[in-house]
Amino acid sequence: MAIRIGIFGYGNLGRGVECAIRQNPDMELVAVFTRRDPQTVKTVGDVRVLPSDIAPEMKDRIDVMILCGGSAKDLPVQTPELAKHFHVVDSFDTHARIPEHFANVDASAREGGRVAVISVGWDPGMFSLNRLYANAILPEGTDYTFWGKGVSQGHSDAIRRIEGVLDAKQYTIPVEEALRAVRAGENPTLTAREKHLRECFVVAKEGADKARIEREICEMPHYFADYDTTVHFISLEELKREHGGIPHGGTVIRSGRTGAEGENRHVIEYSLKLDSNPEFTASVLVAYARAAYRMSLEGQCGCKTVLDIPPAYLSACDADELRRRLL
Amino acid sequence: MAIRIGIFGYGNLGRGVECAIRQNPDMELVAVFTRRDPQTVKTVGDVRVLPSDIAPEMKDRIDVMILCGGSAKDLPVQTPELAKHFHVVDSFDTHARIPEHFANVDASAREGGRVAVISVGWDPGMFSLNRLYANAILPEGTDYTFWGKGVSQGHSDAIRRIEGVLDAKQYTIPVEEALRAVRAGENPTLTAREKHLRECFVVAKEGADKARIEREICEMPHYFADYDTTVHFISLEELKREHGGIPHGGTVIRSGRTGAEGENRHVIEYSLKLDSNPEFTASVLVAYARAAYRMSLEGQCGCKTVLDIPPAYLSACDADELRRRLL
Repeated sequence: MAIRIGIFGYGNLGRGVECAIRQNPDMELVAVFTRRDPQTVKTVGDVRVLPSDIAPEMKDRIDVMILCGGSAKDLPVQTPELAKHFHVVDSFDTHARIPEHFANVDASAREGGRVAVISVGWDPGMFSLNRLYANAILPEGTDYTFWGKGVSQGHSDAIRRIEGVLDAKQYTIPVEEALRAVRAGENPTLTAREKHLRECFVVAKEGADKARIEREICEMPHYFADYDTTVHFISLEELKREHGGIPHGGTVIRSGRTGAEGENRHVIEYSLKLDSNPEFTASVLVAYARAAYRMSLEGQCGCKTVLDIPPAYLSACDADELRRRLL
Repeated sequence: MAIRIGIFGYGNLGRGVECAIRQNPDMELVAVFTRRDPQTVKTVGDVRVLPSDIAPEMKDRIDVMILCGGSAKDLPVQTPELAKHFHVVDSFDTHARIPEHFANVDASAREGGRVAVISVGWDPGMFSLNRLYANAILPEGTDYTFWGKGVSQGHSDAIRRIEGVLDAKQYTIPVEEALRAVRAGENPTLTAREKHLRECFVVAKEGADKARIEREICEMPHYFADYDTTVHFISLEELKREHGGIPHGGTVIRSGRTGAEGENRHVIEYSLKLDSNPEFTASVLVAYARAAYRMSLEGQCGCKTVLDIPPAYLSACDADELRRRLL
């Protein structure tokens, strides 16, 4: 019998989850839940769209609910609430608030006898896993994370809030020389500026003061002031044509030493090049939905993260086949 | 209390395990076991060296035995035997015989109520894990594994068996153009020759026919005939000076597609650059020794592989700290 999935929230991420489920024959999409008028939601395939407030009524017809809302306001409320009724998976990515979110979701999931997996995606998610494995293998070493080249939604939004800006896209780009030094095992100490560049494509409103906009971007604390930032003013047409995608990616590297005197150097690198950030995140969510379901069949409950879950639980193949084919 | 470790077999790998244990304060090396005369074994630190046949007598003083013998003859016998008395970890790497080894070790470990982890290292091991994760996330895609640049012990041995050869080192080198195409998501179909080069450094005996040696190398079935092979004749001094190390590494790449029509491409890459193949393998073995011990405390028993083990079990840090620091 297929694993019955619900999607809670239908933006880019929810749409990505719908597409990912179509690639996994052991899963069945039962319904999409939305806070909007269900009539106005256009899904990729033929699937029921229901108002979000009736979700709990579907608890006997859905095994795992995949939450596709935002980390700022949606998930801190929705994940604990839905974990009372369903096994749940979310992509909560506010690193600093993970312990608090974990505690809230854990309490709810235990109350409901459900399995919850939080902070699933690529960072947190696959990058976290790689940091963990690399740290466990090379206790004496240094970690580096580079993001990009990719679109930062947060930085793009920050530019759009500047007066006179009609629209904007910001790319985070790792500095090649920093990557080279880290890959060579040189263990450099790097400032924010030495690790990433910020490139901005901005559409100014008619008559806006471009020099002021550029200055406000480059001097914006936290977002841009600590980085070398380039600003390009382009037309709305060019923005839509050339910068319509949501690519991202990045690299996690750990460089460490072994041997009687630390004489041997090792570099472990994990990297992602993603045409679509939300679709890749969605694909990770779907694999962990399978894992949540498997753990529930074993009678487990409570909140988990990617760090707690046996890798084999993500796969639709059985253990014998995995040992034969992938080990 | 520290996890009490034994090392069974003391070659390059056993020495690497000894060094790795020194980097992990939650572990204590109790003894090294050898089939040689213990008096002749020189360890890095101050540790008891005992004859291998008395190992079972130490079963109350050692938690995890790390097996450091070879996959051809040692491990198929030793791992099942020792799994009756200890939690064990081995680096069995004969891919085709893993199912058989798994079954033998599982039976013994269950008989003894012990946890066994087999096929730990980088391939099988970390590469297997990365194949599994990437396959689960991108069900529609293609896998590639490249090895090197690194020393292949098997290929070096094959050259040494040719008449007139005094010593030899063989490097396996991935073909740059193949790597480029795979990284670009071009999904090429690659023959053995298109994926790897083989470079050989050979010391010929005085008066040996070098042309014949070179021909025998290049035409050797399985080992060299299917590859572009380069042979350099050098002096014994140069071999020792320039080719004394045991570096290795490689790259696992999965390239796949997502989206309503498969319109978005993603490339997941994991790569290793290792100055010392045995020391890195040893570091992985030690992390999984910790995991085996943790699982035993939960009352688990039987044979496991890296695919079955929750990542957090590899780390000396507790779950709260891992969520705070690495997630």
